[in-house]
Formats: sequence, structure tokens, C-alpha cells
Amino acid sequence: MRDVAVIGVGVTKFGELWNKSFRTLGIEAGIKALADANMTGSEVDGVFVGNMSAGRFVNQQHIDALIADYSGLSTNGVPAVRVEAGEASGGVAFRQAVMAVASGMHDVVLAAGAEKMTDLDDASGNAILDSTADAEWEASMGVTFPSLHAMIANRMIHDGIATREEIASFAVNSHAHGALNPNAQFRKAVPIETVLRSGPVASPLGMFDCAPISDGAAAVVICPLDKAKEYTDSYVKVSAVAQASDTLALFQRDDITRYNATSVAARNAYRLAGIEASDINVAEVHDNYTVSGIMALQDLGFFERGKAGKAVLEGQVALGNRLVVNTSGGLKARGHPIGATGVAQIVEITEQLRGSADKRQVDGAKYGLAQSVGGIGSAVTVSILEAI
Amino acid sequence: MRDVAVIGVGVTKFGELWNKSFRTLGIEAGIKALADANMTGSEVDGVFVGNMSAGRFVNQQHIDALIADYSGLSTNGVPAVRVEAGEASGGVAFRQAVMAVASGMHDVVLAAGAEKMTDLDDASGNAILDSTADAEWEASMGVTFPSLHAMIANRMIHDGIATREEIASFAVNSHAHGALNPNAQFRKAVPIETVLRSGPVASPLGMFDCAPISDGAAAVVICPLDKAKEYTDSYVKVSAVAQASDTLALFQRDDITRYNATSVAARNAYRLAGIEASDINVAEVHDNYTVSGIMALQDLGFFERGKAGKAVLEGQVALGNRLVVNTSGGLKARGHPIGATGVAQIVEITEQLRGSADKRQVDGAKYGLAQSVGGIGSAVTVSILEAI
Repeated sequence: MRDVAVIGVGVTKFGELWNKSFRTLGIEAGIKALADANMTGSEVDGVFVGNMSAGRFVNQQHIDALIADYSGLSTNGVPAVRVEAGEASGGVAFRQAVMAVASGMHDVVLAAGAEKMTDLDDASGNAILDSTADAEWEASMGVTFPSLHAMIANRMIHDGIATREEIASFAVNSHAHGALNPNAQFRKAVPIETVLRSGPVASPLGMFDCAPISDGAAAVVICPLDKAKEYTDSYVKVSAVAQASDTLALFQRDDITRYNATSVAARNAYRLAGIEASDINVAEVHDNYTVSGIMALQDLGFFERGKAGKAVLEGQVALGNRLVVNTSGGLKARGHPIGATGVAQIVEITEQLRGSADKRQVDGAKYGLAQSVGGIGSAVTVSILEAI
Repeated sequence: MRDVAVIGVGVTKFGELWNKSFRTLGIEAGIKALADANMTGSEVDGVFVGNMSAGRFVNQQHIDALIADYSGLSTNGVPAVRVEAGEASGGVAFRQAVMAVASGMHDVVLAAGAEKMTDLDDASGNAILDSTADAEWEASMGVTFPSLHAMIANRMIHDGIATREEIASFAVNSHAHGALNPNAQFRKAVPIETVLRSGPVASPLGMFDCAPISDGAAAVVICPLDKAKEYTDSYVKVSAVAQASDTLALFQRDDITRYNATSVAARNAYRLAGIEASDINVAEVHDNYTVSGIMALQDLGFFERGKAGKAVLEGQVALGNRLVVNTSGGLKARGHPIGATGVAQIVEITEQLRGSADKRQVDGAKYGLAQSVGGIGSAVTVSILEAI
């Protein structure tokens, strides 16, 4: 298999973008990525799109054809594929794109993700989100996405793995970084009191423990590593893409305070990249809820079980440390337009490794990691990028 | 890249299966395919699932995790990916699976497709189907899937490319073959009068011009060609998988009586397989409407433009001819559970090439082709299999 490089990235502002349609968002991100790679769409020979549920959010299936068409790629018949893996849809799209180039079946591929979620009222939107849980055995019983995460949080607190304050502190870290990101949905640092006192969603989690409903899109252009220089001097190497799965329902797990799929995907990714967890300098993890962020830091091997919460609370993953987490603001502050999220993580890591992250820059970052989670840890991708 | 083989196939009965859930259908097809390949799920290291809209049909997203979980694969963390390309979802899932094995990233992969469509009333179900057309610029104006195909049929008749009778005859051919397929939804041969006099859907197309709403699932197991013998003596070679795209909306095309995406995908597939259209002995084409079947025979290069309809009417693609089309009964008679359809085509071609198609057997078939179409020709896959 061939080595692969990311040679261009593009992302829209995330937020409640009522003046932009699903397709205009997708096109904006795609054009930015192509311009960043100093190329036009005519050089692209494959497209992978991560999208969770445009069929329900905006009544449009067949997103693959839509994106190929509106990017001007359908005139050449360029194949486009939409993938869905719940909230990990963007991460899976990136992995499929890397596989397509690594295999030699494609040369220049656009991996994109988009979601337009605010066209529906909150109740309808949340019902769609709940459909990534087990519809027959969990959602049908009244379980929602927030309540599943609340159960995890309660168990972690009960078992002494993290305190309520430690869990809440993950949002403080994400918001501090989001304040520095011009494309973030929320650009305001918040003290831990704000998180702890926010309106209850599912006890112990409050509003500031939960990522928002967002619109947005992100895209990256990839090609074989040995051809990257033909397009740009500013590229990064894809050292690993790994994916693993777990049970769809939470109740079927022996231990609900960790995601086995994260552990398996991370182990495979470190092996493929030939590095260890301690080599990572910058990481984007899937903090759809604060508690997910704490679990991620443990399951990815950054901290021992029971120590991640304390580290976050003490500011050990903020800018200026050896490992910096969620410089983009994460899902909590940057926003979480589902299909876009996993691709936006790759955009952020690429910016960091090529030194173009502006006020969020982690100096001298060599290895970056992105973790994307579908459902309640039912599908997880872990990607590792490397500065050249 | 490595050569790839299909080593096992499985398909459920297609039809209105009110006593079977989405997940039981998927599992039934998967277990049949694994048993046919003489293996258990523990040897599978990757899963690709074609599904159009379980989120809307049965309120379940994250089908990738569902299938991995219920196939017993999530205990090993096996990665699973759901792909969607409208009605071509199954064809795209097969192509992604082949790419995964050809690249060396996976060894034994399950490619599956499933759809459970009859849990909704007809109006709701058809609204979902219409969402594979352009929601903003076509469906929103009142265009439906049948009316788009009726426009194509009217134009073909107006331009002298095919007569009404020739178009109708495609259903006669599919029903004649479906009568021989124990898994088909409709197992009754029909005379052309039945098609011509069937209740109008969108003039000139009547009910017998349209594929039904169906439940069903299909699965195939693939592995590297040089390892196929370790599992079975009854396998076929995957000679080519190609995919192409076109505009999402029909109105944006210069000529609506042909699908450019079919032509592009077929040209690439023949080149990859090192053969010509005339080498194909058995083909499964996407006859969601009779008129689509006629177009397919022309766009795939089997007949010159203007000659396919006459050939079908004269019985030239029925069993006993040099090229036999839709031995399974096609979408019209076998049924069309959308995500399953493209994979079921691969099942049928595999059965034909290894000589296990029973009463539908095409003697001495060497090369088989499957064409899967998404939307109104907006995404097309063409796969070519070869007898060993």
C-alpha cells in the first residue's frame, strides 16, 4: 500500500447557519480545501462524504451524487460514496478515502463531511440523534442519548474514576480553546462554575456538558505522499487510520466506563504508525459529552484510568502542555454538525502539524491524533497524522 | 492490488415480510453467506453494509454497528461501514468491500445489503424513495420517482428509441425468470398484455412497469483470490468493480434517454477486466422501471441505441440465448429491497458462474455483469465477475 498525505483542508464556520443550505455548506468546505491544495476539482478522481442523516434532517438522500454534482465532478463521472456510522460518519469517510488512495484505486480524493441540523425543531432533531442508539432495545424504552451518557457519568463517579468537577472541567478546556478558533460555534471561555450550575439535561450532566446542535461542513484533499509536493509544500503524512466496533446497545457491555472500540482502534493505529500514545502532541477527541472526553483520554492511553479527570481539571491538556487536547474547541465549543465533525478534526490536526493554527498553535507538534465516535462507542475511528 | 474472489453468497426471500425485522433479515443473509463459504464470523475482519434509509424506514441509524453487533463481530472490534448511494447502495457496498480486500487492508470481508420497507404505508415509503431525487430542485416541485421515469419513457418513444410495447416487454422477461427463482417476490410469468393493461402509475408506465416495495437482505463473502481455495472449491473471480456519477437532477442533462454514469462505469469495468461487452454471458441490470432496463442494455453496450427494445420483445435476452438478462427476476419480479438489491445481483451472478443457479442456470457462463443504479442514474456501479 502507498503512503498518503493530506494536502488541503477547508472548513466552514460551525453554528446555527439559517442562511446556508446543506449543499452550499458542503460546497464551501470543498472549494476551500481544493484551493488550499492549489488545485481545481478536475484533478479529483474520487469523493467520500460523511453524513449521518440528511434524509431526515433535510429530506435528501443520495448525498454522494449531490456532492459530486455540485462540486462539478459529475461531468467527469467521478465516483462518490456516502458513508454513515452515526456520529463517526466523518471519521469513517476519512478512513475510506485514505484506503482508496493507499490501495491505488484512486489518486486524488476529496473526503468531506456535512450536516444541516437546525432546520428541524430540537425535539425532532434529538429523536434523530437517538436513532444511533439501539432503536429496538434501548431507544424504544425511552432511553435518550443524554441519559445514556448520564448513566456512564454516574457510574464513573460511583466507581471513583472521576469526580463531577473533573468531568465538568472537560468543557472548560474545550471552551478556552474554542475562544481562539474563529470558526467555532461558541467563542467564549467559561469557568467551571458555569458548567456545574448549567441547567440539568440528564443528571449529573447539565447543558454545558453537552455539545450543541450545529450546521457545518469540512473537507480535506488527500493524495499519495510521493505526489504531495507537486501540489503544495504544506502537507502532512497520514500515519494510520484504524476503526473498531462494539455492541450497539450500552446495556450489553461488561463495563460501561470505557469504550472498547476506542482501545482497539487506538492500539491498531499506534502499531500502524509505529509510535506510542506518549508520542502524541495534539489530539482531537469526541467530546459530544464531557464524560466522553474524559473516557477518551483514558481509552486512548494518554492517562491511566482514574487519572484523566484530575489532569484535565488541573489544566494539563490546555495549550502550553506536552499534550494539548481539542485545540479546535472540540465538539463542545467548535460545534458538532455530525457528519462534518470527524473531518473537521482532521482539518484541525493538519493545521497544527503544518503550523497554520494561528492562536491555537501547539509549538513543534510532530504527531497528532483524531478520535471519532459513533453511537455510544459502537464505532470508533482513530487517525494519526505526522508532520513532515 | 490483489485479485479478489467471491467465496460465499446468501440471500433471503424477498417480499412483504411482516414477520421479520430489519436485523433478523440482515443476520439471515449474513449467516447463509458465511455457511456457504464454510466459515464462521470469527474469520471476518471487515464489514460493508449497503442500506438506503433505515433511519426513516425503521428509525435506526448506525446500521454498521448494528450488523457488526448482531453478527457477533463486535466482540473482536471488527470495523463495519455503512454506505449509501440511493438505490445503488448495495452495489457501492460491494465495490468498497472489494477495494478493502484488494488494497490489503482487509482479508475476509462481508459485503451485505438490507432494507425493510413495508413497515410504513405506501405514501410514506414513496416519499422516502423520492428523496433520492433532487429534493431542492425536483422533488420539491412535485416530481416523483415514477414521473421522472415516465418522462424518460415518453422521450424514448417520441425519439423512436423504443416503442411502448418494447418497453413493456422488459417486465415480461423479468417475470418469466422470476417464476423460476424460489426467493423471488413474484413467481408468476406474465404476458405483455398484463403489463400494457396494468393500472396507470405515470403515463405511459403502469403498475407492471414498476418494481415493488420489498423487504429483504443479501450478503457475499470475499477474500483474496489466492486464498479462496482454503475455504471452498466453488468461487468466482471479481474481474472489475467500477463506479461513476452524474447530475443529481434529471433536468440538468443534455439527453435524458441514456445514463452517462452507466456508460462511464461500464467502459472502465470492461477495461479493468480486459473484455468487451460482447463477452458477457449473463447480466443483472437495474430494472426499477421497465424503461431503466431498456436503457441499461444500450448504455452497457449490449445493444445499439434503438435496438434493445426490439431484442427484448423478441425474447433475445431470455434463457437459452447467448446473453441472458435478469435471470433472478430482476428488481421487477425478484423484488427491490433497496440496500439489498445491488448485493443480491452479485449473489445471482455468482450462482450462475459457479453453476448453482438451478432452473435459471445459463449453461457455460464465463463472464457475468451486475449494474446498480442510484437515483435517476446519478450513481452507477458496474461489476464484472468471472468463472474460474
